[in-house]
Amino acid sequence: MSSFTVAEVAARCGGRVAGDGKLRLSGVRALEWAGPEELAFVADRKNEPKALASRAGALLARSAAAFPGRTVIEVPDPALAVVAALELFHPRREARPGIHGTAIVDPGALVDASAEVGPYAVVGDGSRVGPRAIVEAHVVVGRGCVLGEDAWLHPHVVLYDGVTLGARVEVHAGVVLGADGFGYVPGPKGIVKVPQVGTVAIGDDVEIGANSCIDRAALETTRIGAGTKVDDLVMVGHNCIVGTNGFLCGQAGLAGSTIVGDGVMLGGQVGSAGHLTIGNGVKAEAQSGIPSDVPDGAIIHGTPAFDYREHHRSFVEFRRLPETARLVRMLAEKAGLRKGEDR
Amino acid sequence: MSSFTVAEVAARCGGRVAGDGKLRLSGVRALEWAGPEELAFVADRKNEPKALASRAGALLARSAAAFPGRTVIEVPDPALAVVAALELFHPRREARPGIHGTAIVDPGALVDASAEVGPYAVVGDGSRVGPRAIVEAHVVVGRGCVLGEDAWLHPHVVLYDGVTLGARVEVHAGVVLGADGFGYVPGPKGIVKVPQVGTVAIGDDVEIGANSCIDRAALETTRIGAGTKVDDLVMVGHNCIVGTNGFLCGQAGLAGSTIVGDGVMLGGQVGSAGHLTIGNGVKAEAQSGIPSDVPDGAIIHGTPAFDYREHHRSFVEFRRLPETARLVRMLAEKAGLRKGEDR
Amino acid sequence: MSSFTVAEVAARCGGRVAGDGKLRLSGVRALEWAGPEELAFVADRKNEPKALASRAGALLARSAAAFPGRTVIEVPDPALAVVAALELFHPRREARPGIHGTAIVDPGALVDASAEVGPYAVVGDGSRVGPRAIVEAHVVVGRGCVLGEDAWLHPHVVLYDGVTLGARVEVHAGVVLGADGFGYVPGPKGIVKVPQVGTVAIGDDVEIGANSCIDRAALETTRIGAGTKVDDLVMVGHNCIVGTNGFLCGQAGLAGSTIVGDGVMLGGQVGSAGHLTIGNGVKAEAQSGIPSDVPDGAIIHGTPAFDYREHHRSFVEFRRLPETARLVRMLAEKAGLRKGEDR
Repeated sequence: MSSFTVAEVAARCGGRVAGDGKLRLSGVRALEWAGPEELAFVADRKNEPKALASRAGALLARSAAAFPGRTVIEVPDPALAVVAALELFHPRREARPGIHGTAIVDPGALVDASAEVGPYAVVGDGSRVGPRAIVEAHVVVGRGCVLGEDAWLHPHVVLYDGVTLGARVEVHAGVVLGADGFGYVPGPKGIVKVPQVGTVAIGDDVEIGANSCIDRAALETTRIGAGTKVDDLVMVGHNCIVGTNGFLCGQAGLAGSTIVGDGVMLGGQVGSAGHLTIGNGVKAEAQSGIPSDVPDGAIIHGTPAFDYREHHRSFVEFRRLPETARLVRMLAEKAGLRKGEDR
Repeated sequence: MSSFTVAEVAARCGGRVAGDGKLRLSGVRALEWAGPEELAFVADRKNEPKALASRAGALLARSAAAFPGRTVIEVPDPALAVVAALELFHPRREARPGIHGTAIVDPGALVDASAEVGPYAVVGDGSRVGPRAIVEAHVVVGRGCVLGEDAWLHPHVVLYDGVTLGARVEVHAGVVLGADGFGYVPGPKGIVKVPQVGTVAIGDDVEIGANSCIDRAALETTRIGAGTKVDDLVMVGHNCIVGTNGFLCGQAGLAGSTIVGDGVMLGGQVGSAGHLTIGNGVKAEAQSGIPSDVPDGAIIHGTPAFDYREHHRSFVEFRRLPETARLVRMLAEKAGLRKGEDR
Repeated sequence: MSSFTVAEVAARCGGRVAGDGKLRLSGVRALEWAGPEELAFVADRKNEPKALASRAGALLARSAAAFPGRTVIEVPDPALAVVAALELFHPRREARPGIHGTAIVDPGALVDASAEVGPYAVVGDGSRVGPRAIVEAHVVVGRGCVLGEDAWLHPHVVLYDGVTLGARVEVHAGVVLGADGFGYVPGPKGIVKVPQVGTVAIGDDVEIGANSCIDRAALETTRIGAGTKVDDLVMVGHNCIVGTNGFLCGQAGLAGSTIVGDGVMLGGQVGSAGHLTIGNGVKAEAQSGIPSDVPDGAIIHGTPAFDYREHHRSFVEFRRLPETARLVRMLAEKAGLRKGEDR
């Protein structure tokens, strides 16, 4: 790893140096672990005591005033500025142009000269791999797929036929895009599979976490909007349309034909029932189960989910329920509405 | 893609043409998206307004009466008939007989001459790949496995040793069949792993969604019954016996030794506690947690799950609980059973 | 499979033979399925009727007294002793030393001469594969990884750069270790990804189930403590520190920065909210949602989770809630606190 001076890091972060700008830094660490040659960041006031105790050679903070005698890079938003510092020390891996000798690229596929195709990757007929895209080891790309510029497919990703990825899409290991949706109809001799002949389209700047699955549409296109981030082990059923700049946290699941607005945040293990619409800016707290349409901006909780404040009030009473019910039975007994056997 | 006349499609669907039987159709689309050379289907009455507004060249519907002047293929069950139409335009991919030059097939394995083994697939000693089976790229089949006729393993599927698949089983990308069950016993020096020496048997016509996991039994056989459909990211623990013609929806999980009857429907993210029996025809609504035996035909909801109508009634009162509890505290205060400080 | 006499099995299990020590056994089966040449074990008293009805040639049981005329291997703990018997019939697969001709091992990687690297495996620069480790087909090991002695990576496991595994770690098929954590900050032009530059360290004797995902830390190290067992489809978010000898059951999920003590048991589909501490010895029942710190030794249930006995009491009243609420409305009406329209 390269090292940089405090001044160089500050320049990258758009920050102002207070202290020793010539100090060389070798990386970024957490406050607890950073040493005299490392940078640490102070996300907010709450972390100031930890920062004062830190052995970090330099701090990335809102103001140097709280850290007399320390070398500080002052920035308006340390949590954002640390991204720039991290990118300096750990530049994003770039494509090493070329197709590995063991990769099997169909003659009908088009791989940009600046793209990288790794060992044992398989790319099908009619697929296009865009400029500077990275296809890592063991990735399988079906026929007629499109990988936008700077797309990055980690090892063992599988794209079924016809899946398209926008620019800068990052797909983590083990993700499956475009497998058949879960579509069946009852027939006279039992369950009949409905051929799933649609596809999947992933917008620009989407990131998809390890081992997640996004199923192809029955007839049309399952979509993830630009800028949306999908965590690990998430499932998106067929025909879903997910908006832009949202977050689907770990192990969340959308049943088929869920329409999700822009800027939606679904917490971990949230499930949605399908054939419904989740409005723009909705937040569903972890493990919620969404049974029906949710209006724009709602914050919901529970299974079935409803307004999180109302849920909180009901939940408080749920915990008190044994005592409340005991009172009810005493009152009912007193009023002659029931007998006292089961208080 | 090939094109077909309305009359040809009608013949395939067992339908009657009203209108222009010679019109050429290039495919099937959703009502909203179909154009003048495309077929769309009208699942039920509710979709009639959409169908009237659709630009589709032909409609697959129960009756032409609702669509005067339109070309209609009349069928008793449009949702079922569209399957036949889809199969006409998108015939199921057939095996391209042969073993890819990069596949590693153990000399002790038996691959039917009509089967296809794709690039970089690995097939172990003693395994049998049946007629017309498809083993796609990067699939790993252990030793002593059996793939029935017309089985289809998508890329990156892993079968541990001894797993057997019936006829026409379709396994989507990333599925793992036969990994060790989660079996441990406390020993004098800590946790001891119980060797998992059983196996997994998948019945005919089962489909398994992407990245699902079905663990091998400790001693005997984990089973999925014929015709059952398993969605993405589902987990079936060791020793489970799942019946026929059921549905395990996305991210559902069965703990070890769960016995599941025939025709069972487990909604998305449903969990079952293991060492229990779920009767025939049971429906568990999404996110339910099944704590104990469930009788045949029950429809259940909640965690722990119970009758869905009772759950609904309790849930309605859960939402009203703050108001109900307020009344109780007022009544109790009036009756001198408590003081008024915490209404 | 080899066969062994009852006496040989007893010697391995540290048991005492009552009956025919020379009887040859060909394997271990469940009581229901064992035949005259097979061993079955009687876990506890409850299984005695089944054992009496079993055709098993020999029983592994606490005492022969309950089984007159039968051949019994007496041991103090049959559930533990059967492990020894199983290991006799099914010895753990050993590494077949050598690197398969199709594996791609970077010249800068160090593979111990006693280790096995399977077909199409890829091992990156600077990685070390320890003595007797097994790297099965299609495993991808990034750069700078460490596999401890006797580590076993099943097919299709992916290790991102810098992941370290202790001795005897077993990782099942499809597991992804070290993918990027889910870390983003809001920026002036939208969501900005925080580079995830930490890593993952897995302690000795850990087992990880199929298709589970453990994300790399943002800056430091995501850790799984020695002896902890992780089931299938589990997600561990970035920066989590999981203690020793715990169990994370199927489909459980830990959001980022969860600290988990030693000996913790998280049931199936449990979720934890992140940035919190779960004490030593905590048990969270299946599907619980953990919203905040949990003290040592607590047994919790529900979403949000609290003491499981209290939860049980509240849940009993939840089921009775329609009747309780009806009484409340009658009482309120009587007391003139409300009108009778909505009983």
